[in-house]
Amino acid sequence: MQRLTYFVATSIDGNIARPDDSFDFFVGEGDHVTDYLAALKTFDSVVMGRRTYDIAAKAGVTNPYPWLTTYVVSKTIASSADPNVTIVGDDAVNVVRSLKERPGRGIYLCGGGKLAALLLEHDLVDEITIKLNPVIAGEGIPVFAKMDRPTALELVDTKVYENGVVFLQYRVKRSPRA
Amino acid sequence: MQRLTYFVATSIDGNIARPDDSFDFFVGEGDHVTDYLAALKTFDSVVMGRRTYDIAAKAGVTNPYPWLTTYVVSKTIASSADPNVTIVGDDAVNVVRSLKERPGRGIYLCGGGKLAALLLEHDLVDEITIKLNPVIAGEGIPVFAKMDRPTALELVDTKVYENGVVFLQYRVKRSPRA
Repeated sequence: MQRLTYFVATSIDGNIARPDDSFDFFVGEGDHVTDYLAALKTFDSVVMGRRTYDIAAKAGVTNPYPWLTTYVVSKTIASSADPNVTIVGDDAVNVVRSLKERPGRGIYLCGGGKLAALLLEHDLVDEITIKLNPVIAGEGIPVFAKMDRPTALELVDTKVYENGVVFLQYRVKRSPRA
Repeated sequence: MQRLTYFVATSIDGNIARPDDSFDFFVGEGDHVTDYLAALKTFDSVVMGRRTYDIAAKAGVTNPYPWLTTYVVSKTIASSADPNVTIVGDDAVNVVRSLKERPGRGIYLCGGGKLAALLLEHDLVDEITIKLNPVIAGEGIPVFAKMDRPTALELVDTKVYENGVVFLQYRVKRSPRA
């Protein structure tokens, strides 16, 4: 059983990007970037939504994490231009569930908020690491799409960087469903 | 010149309450409550929006911070039932600006997100202390109402509590307006 970790940069008002998907207001340099890249090396695979994937794809990067087995959840993309990227259509929840059941070093969920909410609602998210940036976005893409109930977390670790970024590592508390 | 501090509890997805204004998902006990109450003693006055005030008022508390000079911003309340509470109508920005120009130990902005965004957009918020709670709200009242541009912050201090609450103290960076 592999753990799935949503590892994501947010503003203090809970946004992961501007409304146009850009995220230039986040701190782009510093020790937190080194730590983030090191953390990405600890995973075997990555899952992301189509909109998140498009940010890389539009920049010409069709395989943004070449050392990870990559799954892109999309109902509109038929197949990937890159043989190392697997497109997951309607069945994202079951694909991720199967993936978690395989042995491995962990699954990285890189975004976005809609996929994160979907997987969280199906009890498939184990950990959330917020890279909290010293900025108020004001508007943008929320870290989680709307969900009809709160989810309790357990704070596992924190790290404060000189540039004002704070890493907050949470474990998702499982609660019995009605 | 007094400083104005927005001191507010949020979920990791940037909400200060459920859609119905309740906030039972926040951690209600622990050292962070002691520190929060101690911090409130350092202010002279408090400013809040009508919806925030109503939470106390509906519970029969018409003067929730009796040691502070209290201002409630509302276009619908004509006057206060409590002689210690001043209702501010149309002119919230100018009233707060005048208040800041008076000598004093500081102004506490207790909410909500609409008033916080209004005052921030008028360069009247100096500090923001987030009481970050280990919870995903899923939906609710955002810590800031929609603003059309990001605001950069400087992280001043952090404190991690055993119960998973994290205090994050930020200074608002002033940027020249176009």
